[in-house]
Amino acid sequence: MSRQRERGVTPQSEDFSAWYNELVVKAELVERGPAKGTMVIRPYGYRMWELLQSELDQRIKDTGHENAYFPLLIPQSYLTREAEHVEGFSPELAVVTHAGGKELDEPLVVRPTSETVIGEMMSRWISSHRDLPMLLNQWANVVRWEMRPRLLLRTTEFLWQEAHTAHVDEADAMRETMLGLEVYTQVARDVTAIPVVPGEKTPGERFAGAVRTYTIEGMMRDGRALQAGTSHYLGDNFARAFNIRYATESGELAYAHTTSWGMTTRMMGAVAMTHGDDQGLVLPPKVAPYQVVIVPIGKGEQLDTVVDAAKDLLSRLRSAGVRTHLDARTHLSPGFKFNQWELQGVPLRIELGPRDLAAGVGTLARRLGDGKEQIPLDTAPELIPSILQEFQDFLLQRATKFREAHTTVVSDWDAFTSAVAGGWALALHCGEGSCEDEIKADTAATPRCVPLDGERESGACVRCGKPSAYGKRVIFGRAY
Amino acid sequence: MSRQRERGVTPQSEDFSAWYNELVVKAELVERGPAKGTMVIRPYGYRMWELLQSELDQRIKDTGHENAYFPLLIPQSYLTREAEHVEGFSPELAVVTHAGGKELDEPLVVRPTSETVIGEMMSRWISSHRDLPMLLNQWANVVRWEMRPRLLLRTTEFLWQEAHTAHVDEADAMRETMLGLEVYTQVARDVTAIPVVPGEKTPGERFAGAVRTYTIEGMMRDGRALQAGTSHYLGDNFARAFNIRYATESGELAYAHTTSWGMTTRMMGAVAMTHGDDQGLVLPPKVAPYQVVIVPIGKGEQLDTVVDAAKDLLSRLRSAGVRTHLDARTHLSPGFKFNQWELQGVPLRIELGPRDLAAGVGTLARRLGDGKEQIPLDTAPELIPSILQEFQDFLLQRATKFREAHTTVVSDWDAFTSAVAGGWALALHCGEGSCEDEIKADTAATPRCVPLDGERESGACVRCGKPSAYGKRVIFGRAY
Ligand SMILES: [Zn+2]
Ligand SMILES: [Zn+2]
Repeated sequence: MSRQRERGVTPQSEDFSAWYNELVVKAELVERGPAKGTMVIRPYGYRMWELLQSELDQRIKDTGHENAYFPLLIPQSYLTREAEHVEGFSPELAVVTHAGGKELDEPLVVRPTSETVIGEMMSRWISSHRDLPMLLNQWANVVRWEMRPRLLLRTTEFLWQEAHTAHVDEADAMRETMLGLEVYTQVARDVTAIPVVPGEKTPGERFAGAVRTYTIEGMMRDGRALQAGTSHYLGDNFARAFNIRYATESGELAYAHTTSWGMTTRMMGAVAMTHGDDQGLVLPPKVAPYQVVIVPIGKGEQLDTVVDAAKDLLSRLRSAGVRTHLDARTHLSPGFKFNQWELQGVPLRIELGPRDLAAGVGTLARRLGDGKEQIPLDTAPELIPSILQEFQDFLLQRATKFREAHTTVVSDWDAFTSAVAGGWALALHCGEGSCEDEIKADTAATPRCVPLDGERESGACVRCGKPSAYGKRVIFGRAY
Repeated sequence: MSRQRERGVTPQSEDFSAWYNELVVKAELVERGPAKGTMVIRPYGYRMWELLQSELDQRIKDTGHENAYFPLLIPQSYLTREAEHVEGFSPELAVVTHAGGKELDEPLVVRPTSETVIGEMMSRWISSHRDLPMLLNQWANVVRWEMRPRLLLRTTEFLWQEAHTAHVDEADAMRETMLGLEVYTQVARDVTAIPVVPGEKTPGERFAGAVRTYTIEGMMRDGRALQAGTSHYLGDNFARAFNIRYATESGELAYAHTTSWGMTTRMMGAVAMTHGDDQGLVLPPKVAPYQVVIVPIGKGEQLDTVVDAAKDLLSRLRSAGVRTHLDARTHLSPGFKFNQWELQGVPLRIELGPRDLAAGVGTLARRLGDGKEQIPLDTAPELIPSILQEFQDFLLQRATKFREAHTTVVSDWDAFTSAVAGGWALALHCGEGSCEDEIKADTAATPRCVPLDGERESGACVRCGKPSAYGKRVIFGRAY
């Protein structure tokens, strides 16, 4: 194994899965925890999560939601109150049977999601139409036992945000469901540079207990789909199960209509797989813990001078709001540092050597794109923010082109199988679960969503030839 | 029960405990959750927590610590590796025995604190002196089974921040331990206006597994002490248990010295009990979700004009960085709103009626202090921030005076028992656990801490007459 390989990762083109598994660990995003399927989020990864959190939290608050916190441990009986919900989540539950040195009378489940406990509390808090809409959000950890865990994508415990809202009727709850989806679409596009497709899940892919489930789907660089956020209209299913009723203006009692929507730490995996390459991560500046890394170059007294200049640049870039890191470690070579920061996906690198300094410039290298250029040190704080924005825009454009190039409108089965081998197929489908199952068995592809912006179209099912459902084409693809 | 009482709370002077229990619920900070001992943090309470979090998190980052996240579920065997640690925490553990529909080979405990799992990860990450100090912090939920739960003060699950750090030697680890204590002292004083006393715990009150435990102790308005944050020097106890070793500069292997320090949602209970009164909460402006509430007064068309002016004031105050809420609900009387916002502890209220408006003023009422005054509407955004700062300072001064008035230097047992009945006793003590136990059995008072800034003094133990330990007086008091 070459020295490069030892420090780097398996090339993406060679084995995408190995590339991903090695990358998220070597780039110091995450690591396996001691208990099966658990994950440690390292400081570099957690900072990325904090940046995403802060962008998402601001949008959640700006749209009128309030944060709250509900208990981790839920009486097991709560889960059983909504029939589809318990059926969906039972196989994934972690159960506390003993506490305080005794066996519990009733076991407690570690929340896999909080519709039940929040439903119970909403039923206590809501009595009048004046209490509605109730717009709550929670930042929390949840536990779902995973048979085939995968770092960031499917872990036994993950972090997320779960919004839970209650409304007077279906119309208002559906507006909220679509608002949640729109918030996710914007955050994915504008913060993580992932050009997701918002759409509705087919019945077989709905959240356990939902009437309608919406999703944003991103395309990873191996052509697979990743569900990056979901928004559910729950009808009055949970309102009936937990007796969330309110007095209408005319004084009658009515069930509320509820929604829930969630986005998780899996987004960090999505960023890795949407933008990363053989050299490692490529981070969109908006979620990059370091947007710029400065590497001073030189020896002896020359180095001291360079480091002083680098510190000055660091401080001026930080004052300009640029997240900047100075890598002044003396026991490592510049080449080692270049490789490390490329692996960790830092958007911009500024090398600063004695000759640069004499010329009043730094040597700027972008994480993507060939060649280096010189940047004047005195105006760097004014120039860098727009270079970062260009980089952010470039990533979104590149990912959009990639998705478009790997999405095929198909009208026959051969075209379908060929499309889903390396990307997405836009196909007409009959909407029957058994037909979905056959497609999955043959190709490993599943219906990802019925895109919101799809044009009206109908015809024969690409698989079975029966009349198509949904009135438009469905995205099929292999998924994470 | 009078209408006032129904909406208000039991007077503090009548029954402090009932007052507290009713207040934290009626002021909408928290509520009991479905499972025994669990707690729901409502939006008003959670916003207060977010404000405290943000102040504390900034200081933690400014002192060089990085946030990370470690798993909730820890193999049970980890807890047993440090003998005192397992002994201390075993009775409080919640244990997951089943997951994914099966009984687990090894039960997993829900973290009561994270020294063990972080110790394990540190042992993987630390190999050289260059990796030290390692300064980590985690924001998380933890679970400790409580026999006598009390909202915010002792709940089965609570939220906290836990810093975990590793150092080359005792000196550096002790500097860190004291840094954590200093951060807490400042946050308590400057953010929550609680004049805590920093000091060291006596051996009997140490954290399970610590070599030295430091604490900040606040005095509540019933004279009891509340431990508001702790900082532990763990020696190499956890380093030995989890094999956290590093190569020194000369190439030898040495055990790291570790620390941990934590502050929790109990701080919200401390705020309630330090500043609250018969009318309800009194919130320090820095943690008040709303610093100012505007109540428009009037009827019909007059009210419309007033509400327009109130909206204008709202927008200008918000632009000035003042967290302002406009209570424009039409189905509730001004008197009802005054009571509610007093109960919820909003520092300043501005009433705005037609006559105020005609005079270009609002009527300003402080949550504490008699009388109302007029404030010009056009300069309110410039005036309010300093009025809020005055209010913040006033709360700290008032709490400091209260603590001083209820702290007595005692030299005999009668004085001791009388002092701890309504406050704190500063007493010389022999330092023996059995003597502490006797004091507790007789008076319910325990040694809260040996204050850092206590003057050198020695003499006979206030209880048993043996020579005093610690070289200074100890604070004794009843505690939460
Ligand atoms: Zn079909
Ligand atoms: Zn004694």
